[in-house]
Amino acid sequence: MRRATDRLRRHLPALQWAAGYNRDILLSDGIAAVIVTIMLIPQSLAYAMLAGLPPEVGLYASILPLLAYALFGTSRTLAVGPVAVVSLMTASAIGQIAAQGTADYWTAAVALALMSGVMLLIMGFLRLGFLANFLSHPVISGFITASAILIAAGQVRHILGVPGSGSTLVEILAGLSASIRQINPATLAIGAGALCFLYFARRWAKPMAVKSGLPIRAADMLARTAPIFAVAVTILLAIWLDLAAKGVALVGAIPQGLPAPAIPALTWELITGLAVPAFLISIIGFVESVSVGWTLAAKRRQRIVPDQELIGLGAANIASAISSGYPVTGGFARSIVNFDAGAQTPAAGVFTAIGIAFATLFLTPLLGSLPQATLAATIIVAVLSLMNFSAIRHVYQYCRADFSAMMATIIVTLLWGVETGILAGVALSIFLHLYRTSKPHMAIVGQVPGSEHFRNIERHTVTTDPAILSIRVDESLYFANSRYLEDRITALVAGRPDIRHVVLMCPAVNAIDASALESLEEINHRLAEAGIAFHLSEVKGPVMDKLHRSSFLQRLSGKVFLSQYEAVASLSKETT
Amino acid sequence: MRRATDRLRRHLPALQWAAGYNRDILLSDGIAAVIVTIMLIPQSLAYAMLAGLPPEVGLYASILPLLAYALFGTSRTLAVGPVAVVSLMTASAIGQIAAQGTADYWTAAVALALMSGVMLLIMGFLRLGFLANFLSHPVISGFITASAILIAAGQVRHILGVPGSGSTLVEILAGLSASIRQINPATLAIGAGALCFLYFARRWAKPMAVKSGLPIRAADMLARTAPIFAVAVTILLAIWLDLAAKGVALVGAIPQGLPAPAIPALTWELITGLAVPAFLISIIGFVESVSVGWTLAAKRRQRIVPDQELIGLGAANIASAISSGYPVTGGFARSIVNFDAGAQTPAAGVFTAIGIAFATLFLTPLLGSLPQATLAATIIVAVLSLMNFSAIRHVYQYCRADFSAMMATIIVTLLWGVETGILAGVALSIFLHLYRTSKPHMAIVGQVPGSEHFRNIERHTVTTDPAILSIRVDESLYFANSRYLEDRITALVAGRPDIRHVVLMCPAVNAIDASALESLEEINHRLAEAGIAFHLSEVKGPVMDKLHRSSFLQRLSGKVFLSQYEAVASLSKETT
Repeated sequence: MRRATDRLRRHLPALQWAAGYNRDILLSDGIAAVIVTIMLIPQSLAYAMLAGLPPEVGLYASILPLLAYALFGTSRTLAVGPVAVVSLMTASAIGQIAAQGTADYWTAAVALALMSGVMLLIMGFLRLGFLANFLSHPVISGFITASAILIAAGQVRHILGVPGSGSTLVEILAGLSASIRQINPATLAIGAGALCFLYFARRWAKPMAVKSGLPIRAADMLARTAPIFAVAVTILLAIWLDLAAKGVALVGAIPQGLPAPAIPALTWELITGLAVPAFLISIIGFVESVSVGWTLAAKRRQRIVPDQELIGLGAANIASAISSGYPVTGGFARSIVNFDAGAQTPAAGVFTAIGIAFATLFLTPLLGSLPQATLAATIIVAVLSLMNFSAIRHVYQYCRADFSAMMATIIVTLLWGVETGILAGVALSIFLHLYRTSKPHMAIVGQVPGSEHFRNIERHTVTTDPAILSIRVDESLYFANSRYLEDRITALVAGRPDIRHVVLMCPAVNAIDASALESLEEINHRLAEAGIAFHLSEVKGPVMDKLHRSSFLQRLSGKVFLSQYEAVASLSKETT
Repeated sequence: MRRATDRLRRHLPALQWAAGYNRDILLSDGIAAVIVTIMLIPQSLAYAMLAGLPPEVGLYASILPLLAYALFGTSRTLAVGPVAVVSLMTASAIGQIAAQGTADYWTAAVALALMSGVMLLIMGFLRLGFLANFLSHPVISGFITASAILIAAGQVRHILGVPGSGSTLVEILAGLSASIRQINPATLAIGAGALCFLYFARRWAKPMAVKSGLPIRAADMLARTAPIFAVAVTILLAIWLDLAAKGVALVGAIPQGLPAPAIPALTWELITGLAVPAFLISIIGFVESVSVGWTLAAKRRQRIVPDQELIGLGAANIASAISSGYPVTGGFARSIVNFDAGAQTPAAGVFTAIGIAFATLFLTPLLGSLPQATLAATIIVAVLSLMNFSAIRHVYQYCRADFSAMMATIIVTLLWGVETGILAGVALSIFLHLYRTSKPHMAIVGQVPGSEHFRNIERHTVTTDPAILSIRVDESLYFANSRYLEDRITALVAGRPDIRHVVLMCPAVNAIDASALESLEEINHRLAEAGIAFHLSEVKGPVMDKLHRSSFLQRLSGKVFLSQYEAVASLSKETT
């Protein structure tokens, strides 16, 4: 009984915070929800446009998913919904299956949300959260920077009011240069104006508001709500100046009301066509969300549970699919706003969902006159903060291998699109890691006079016995480096006719796999044929336990010594 | 000048052995060549049939490639030519592009040899031999066993004289069961007879010959030439009993004469369609050849140079393509025969090539009456020795992760074919390696009283200071385990309010990549916010050098200590 309750509490974290809910928390959550709602309305519309979907889909994806996450998520302050990078990945994935603007396109987006949700749930129940660890920091950072560049470049046409499309940088730039003569002046005026305003608000509004006496937090909130002002002002301008007649693209009629919950239609074609992108979206969304979640949780000494986060995000995506939405995840900017505005519990998310539902019901008639250029400006300014060029410099200074994985991710993402980019980055970083460990550092060691220590003979003044070759290997032994070990030891022995003992010193060997075991057998065999005994020293406990499961130790021509000192002391006696 | 000569000698190893060539060596090489030629004639025909090619292609692939390897290869005794596994892979690769028996099929096989040759050459010049290390021993062993099962199963129809095809075990078995009523009695008699004879020869001929007074080596040679007897006897039977009229499939007319050297035709379709299989064939062929090469070289204290072997095998495959052959590599059985028969230098390969050329010119009219069932029997008996079931048991006992990679390779190869099988095995073994290192062993350590040693508090009686948490991590820190490190340290600190210092002991940390560096920064930051200082101890020289390239050490709230003893001694003083 107790166990069942624990299990329920683990999988339904809402039970934990709901118990202590009171009026003070309600007030904090309510205020945060109002601010997040105001911020989320333009963002939802904009990101839906980025995904190539009708603007209302962004609103639909910002209602039920928030409720689902509030029930199942472990972060107290994470705000889920449509985000920039996942919207770009959605456009890229479904663009290969259906044409933008068709009903099939929307259906595919909903199917993508469902598949991603189911995959996240499965990963959560199977505790596969560690899969996200195969994305190295430099790869993620490079991928997000490249995605932000692609997103910003893709929005330029909306600012200029020219036609165009394309999912790679080359396509986008070619499209822009082909249509550069068709710039619509009215659209450019609205777009450039909104861009300047939003950029200004982001850069200087907060310091200026603080200077004029506003508290820092309030100034920050004010700056964050700048997009809603841009939206309101450009709607008014569009109506007043009849911008539609001047060729300014408006959002157009948005159906009023909430979507009826529906079970998404999945066909075999959709499943096979979207499986890989759905998986990548799940992983990228999870990584983004969990890193935001940890950052916020740490500030208040709270914890998040990655495997339960998979379930929370999975539920959110399934909820999105049921309400005709598209893939969602925890967003960085909105979560920070939620946190800073004082949200205490996921109830803030519930209130935000109510706010968005309210907007969907009553504000949509107004939003029809919103210029698309305003949304494009919102997107561009939002993704500027995702471009992290200083990270590139730091990685370059620290590690060339990581840097090359990062640059490969950036370049491939820009030139061949998001999916190829992320896969190339992961493959390259795994390859480089294996390559690094495939040629482990090996040193011939000797005894530091008057001590029991053994050090590299090339770096220290040490004494050695000509009949004993002591080699230290600084890496776990596994398939990628086992043949290298064979070759190196054979080569080291080849030039030294006096040698009668080889001691392999293993203090840094954390594991020996079956390939390495076979190589050790081969080394033992080759040395024995040359009349040389093969010994091991300083083998770790777990490694030794495993060696006992094979017959290697019986066949070993020499011994296993607890310490290198003991090995040399014992063997020296023997040889003199 | 000296340098150019060295370079030439390195890339043309023939110069090394040719200098000291004399009559004794000539005699040894000549005898070995005769025996290998006799062995190679039926094998070449059989493996060409296995690859789905006309039998003479096997002979063509056993002439020029041997000359090319003799010039560029580093093994003194390796015998190259068509081998079983590569023949199967060839059939699988070109079966997807053209139908067996067509001219396109043969053209594709020649193109495959050319592409594989060029890839091997490029890998040789770029010194990419290490790529072969990503194939772990259990994956190779499992792949070869599964390939041998597929090959043997695929030949059963020739023994039974029934139609059939298929490249996976299920297809092959389905084909056999569908045509089981069409068994041709005469074919079965020839096939089963040859099978029994060859199996008997392999199993008992040698011991019996030894018993009857023959020297061991001669007995072995005699047993190895059994296939040529089977070929001769069944040809005579086919002619005498007019087996063709009884429905026995014969090899059929073989064009007499040597193929005119020709530059293979490559189309863009062939290149894109064969790129992946050509790469896999190159790697598998290289691994097989190099492991045979090392085994033989070690017996006579010789060396082989893997990167130069790539060039030798590349030249051999290009030579095969020029003479209308198909992919070749160093074969295990024939190299052993060559070695045991006393071959001293690659000149034995040159003489073998002359022998095969002679056979192609003068013996082909006879070979037309050879029953295909005889060749099938040759193949089945040859691949029996490739099936290594005891390796499966040993790997199972030693390491479950390696065992699962091995079983996955076997099962996927049997059910989905050779290419999918080898790729699945490589992917799984890399994944399992990353998974193992993604949750590194971490221990809280304390001081062994009266010593400077620190050991796991759960395994040893040690003393600890409640204000200091010492954690030892037994793995290099990199992207796959960096978040785990963050989570574990955060969790360890969470339950211990007295802690004022955390010391991370790094004697087994051989590297810290950019992801792990970011995690260390995050740990440092989180601990600092909780008022805890973060220290490192026993950081290796190269790791420390790298850390100095970042700003981590400036931001570190604590210190880096040379030894854990020093760390605890210094921090204890501070806290008391």
